[in-house]
Amino acid sequence: MSGKTLLAIHDVNSMTFEQFTTVFGNVVEHCSLCAAAVWQHRPFTDVDHIHQLICDVLDNFPNDAKQGVLCLHPDLAGSVAGLTSESQNEQKAAGIDSLTQDERAKMQERNTSYREKFGFPFVICARKNKTQAILDGLKLRLQNNIEEEVRNGVEQVKEIALLRLFSIVEH
Amino acid sequence: MSGKTLLAIHDVNSMTFEQFTTVFGNVVEHCSLCAAAVWQHRPFTDVDHIHQLICDVLDNFPNDAKQGVLCLHPDLAGSVAGLTSESQNEQKAAGIDSLTQDERAKMQERNTSYREKFGFPFVICARKNKTQAILDGLKLRLQNNIEEEVRNGVEQVKEIALLRLFSIVEH
Repeated sequence: MSGKTLLAIHDVNSMTFEQFTTVFGNVVEHCSLCAAAVWQHRPFTDVDHIHQLICDVLDNFPNDAKQGVLCLHPDLAGSVAGLTSESQNEQKAAGIDSLTQDERAKMQERNTSYREKFGFPFVICARKNKTQAILDGLKLRLQNNIEEEVRNGVEQVKEIALLRLFSIVEH
Repeated sequence: MSGKTLLAIHDVNSMTFEQFTTVFGNVVEHCSLCAAAVWQHRPFTDVDHIHQLICDVLDNFPNDAKQGVLCLHPDLAGSVAGLTSESQNEQKAAGIDSLTQDERAKMQERNTSYREKFGFPFVICARKNKTQAILDGLKLRLQNNIEEEVRNGVEQVKEIALLRLFSIVEH
């Protein structure tokens, strides 16, 4: 779409640690530790291998750290200021930059309720869900308990990570 | 020393998540997830409480993430370029900015051997150790196995974190 050149896995495997964490440090939003943690497993076979390693790190995080990962995500339809470029593109792809006034109000209200109930923002893979699906998802997931929402949130983080990896490495 | 005003725990407890991760995001070097992960436990009783929570997060990290935390640390006596201000001050306090040519060569040689053996840099609380203690520690710890050095490294990360917390919050 953007005409950006994708890296071959060979290029990834020849990166220094600093290069790797610079390029992959935001595959999990604001959490360069996830990139740092998979580094030791070079050489990577392919992009799915990197993704699987990141999923393993996330799954094995203690509960506190899983909630920390979710907290490092921005509110959907919140302020654009301070958004990472990855988040900004994803929200745009989901049509969040062109919500009607009514949709935006509804999303912000449900986001606030979600954050008040769970203590972390509602995380959803915006590139895979259009506006209505996100609004419906928010309503539905608000009914869950915190254990379910930590689990759901982390699964969404994994989906976001896969799409971000696909925008960096050949597949 | 610097005349910097320390925060009262009350001030810390009234911070937003963004303020908190901005101020405490480098208490564990380049690993804002550690700050993000303790956030949910507000209100904090005192600075030792924050430290204990950070230690718990580190202890409960999977092995990959512990090695990732160590990898995010700089080499002692390596290039000053790109060092966080915290690391720079700490290395200065240990006298690493005024090593003799011989000491510097020895430290860089042992650092390289350490990184080659374990895949992560030698991490030591520089504010608690003078040049000779660091050189001796490097020699000694080079003989350990990787499990011992992940454990030793993480213990040093905790000591560094405590001193960084003491430079931010009243104690």
